[in-house]
Amino acid sequence: MDRRSFLKTSALGGTAAAATTLAAPAYAQGNRTLTMVTSVPDGFAVFDDAAVHFAELVNAGTGGALTIDKKPAGSLVGAFEVFDAVSAGQADIYHSADYYFGGQHPGFYFFTAVPFGATAQELATWYYHGGGAELHDELGQIFGLKSFLAGNTGAQPGGWFRKEINSADDLQGLKFRMPGLGGKALGLTGASVQNVPGGEIYQALSSGAIDGAEWIGPFADERLGLQEVCEFYYTGGMHEPGSALTASFNRDVWDSLSPEHQSIVDSAAAATHQWSLTQSHANNGAALDRLVAGGTKVMQFPNDVWDALAVGAKEALDEFMGDELYARIRASFDASVASSSAWIRQSDQAFTDQRTRING
Amino acid sequence: MDRRSFLKTSALGGTAAAATTLAAPAYAQGNRTLTMVTSVPDGFAVFDDAAVHFAELVNAGTGGALTIDKKPAGSLVGAFEVFDAVSAGQADIYHSADYYFGGQHPGFYFFTAVPFGATAQELATWYYHGGGAELHDELGQIFGLKSFLAGNTGAQPGGWFRKEINSADDLQGLKFRMPGLGGKALGLTGASVQNVPGGEIYQALSSGAIDGAEWIGPFADERLGLQEVCEFYYTGGMHEPGSALTASFNRDVWDSLSPEHQSIVDSAAAATHQWSLTQSHANNGAALDRLVAGGTKVMQFPNDVWDALAVGAKEALDEFMGDELYARIRASFDASVASSSAWIRQSDQAFTDQRTRING
Repeated sequence: MDRRSFLKTSALGGTAAAATTLAAPAYAQGNRTLTMVTSVPDGFAVFDDAAVHFAELVNAGTGGALTIDKKPAGSLVGAFEVFDAVSAGQADIYHSADYYFGGQHPGFYFFTAVPFGATAQELATWYYHGGGAELHDELGQIFGLKSFLAGNTGAQPGGWFRKEINSADDLQGLKFRMPGLGGKALGLTGASVQNVPGGEIYQALSSGAIDGAEWIGPFADERLGLQEVCEFYYTGGMHEPGSALTASFNRDVWDSLSPEHQSIVDSAAAATHQWSLTQSHANNGAALDRLVAGGTKVMQFPNDVWDALAVGAKEALDEFMGDELYARIRASFDASVASSSAWIRQSDQAFTDQRTRING
Repeated sequence: MDRRSFLKTSALGGTAAAATTLAAPAYAQGNRTLTMVTSVPDGFAVFDDAAVHFAELVNAGTGGALTIDKKPAGSLVGAFEVFDAVSAGQADIYHSADYYFGGQHPGFYFFTAVPFGATAQELATWYYHGGGAELHDELGQIFGLKSFLAGNTGAQPGGWFRKEINSADDLQGLKFRMPGLGGKALGLTGASVQNVPGGEIYQALSSGAIDGAEWIGPFADERLGLQEVCEFYYTGGMHEPGSALTASFNRDVWDSLSPEHQSIVDSAAAATHQWSLTQSHANNGAALDRLVAGGTKVMQFPNDVWDALAVGAKEALDEFMGDELYARIRASFDASVASSSAWIRQSDQAFTDQRTRING
């Protein structure tokens, strides 16, 4: 039995029972604690910050009637086990990045980031006004989930390397940490790609298990200490141009919430998406300055590396086109991004280009 | 007596009394209706859409305990009178653009947009993580207001013109509608600048009272019918690179809300800022395509026009530096934008430039 069949039968059957058993008594007392499992340790910059902010907004908006009890990676379930745990009703909510769950369904890749995909603004445009949220809902229903964007890292740097990348040939055989379809794209160029949870990247680099890694951005990467084990930092990247984080509820738990509490969660998640994105925008510049002062060399990939990665990205994205829902999600995503990016280029970027030309 | 002195004495004295009288009986019944005055007619794209969305989120999150009764421009007070009405307690909330109230205090310009200032992402970064919200609060306190960002138009086009703008000389004597410090900057280049409420722009253009106008962007401008009276549409602009809309509460009304309701309002406003920005991103591209199909000519200003406007912008911004709070707001804003824009350029834009190079 494959994982998806399992989830569709026994695990989902178990969800309804678990939710009923867990939820009803607490709710009857007027207050209710919801367990939220995450994919990172407590205190991890950006990723955990968004989870904390989301929980605080829900707690405050409901006056404590809904209290979110956050469980970091490894305390209740492992970093990448949160999806199955919430789908099966072992936890109420996960806060994570949905591209970790592309194995459950490849449609989930689009709700974090896909290579050469959407910036954070373009993703939010698709999500809130281009059919993205409705498709997230349709996809989540298969697994008994009700999902929301609840965080965004902004465009992620290409990552940390021990040696310069001067051409696509330098990617051959490179042992590199990169999750999602971006990782698949990189793998198709000849790199040896691995996924490693955030909490284990530093050690994997220190031990030589991997040659390089991407994580989130200067503010979060600095906290991980990646500058201690790699000298070269490529700030432009194709793999995650605006990675969303997600808060996903067990669907039966969600359905048991009052309309007021559902609305408060919805607004809290949307507010957290923006708060988190702008947290990275606010902190990455200063963090990068500190990294440079400490000896990090800031780089951009040459064009032929981008070209090779673009070929890999197309192949990685095409692989799942036999799945009807994946194909529909991709078509919706692509149409929205084509339209919003064209407009942003001739308005927002027309302005920033002139501002840079005049003010430097 | 000037307007500010008036507001600081009699009107603010009146606020406390009015709020107490109006609010207490409704609140005692468990439900409360708050009157929200706006600066546009009902149904105006983008601007009114954000007001409606904000009101809906507050109503839903509070389960109707707080119901916002929106009053369009002219029904209770005029488009530009909403600030004084809420400050004086004649209405509970205004939803508007704070740069209309630069006459009350020039610090308000920064909470909508200033020329050569911040894109929507940069503004939100400053607001939520760079001290902007705290300064908005400090500024609002002077006038008995508690304010939130609650909408954003994205980068606004330079506007609609009856004739091509081939050099800065073509701006001389042009009668043009542009509010805020952007309008002052344009005026300093030799144009004759006027402020006209959104609901009156079409008529002002039709009658020949003005030669051209900017409003919001293709989606909203098309609804106004500006393409019927102007042929040339300049999509890049310096005056409003990401204009926020604001929901501002009478401070005594705000203070009378429960912590839960305050939190719901806070999240609803932040969610509305993002929802509104992405609404424009989602709709402007298709609207521009329709405008072009109908005969509109899409243009970009030549560099010497941008250069002249940059000189005007600096002069316009410098005018108020004698005001301590204005100077402090500007310094905070400038520092945040310098940092976030530099980071966005080498991450987000490094990606979009490569995506455009490869995919067109």
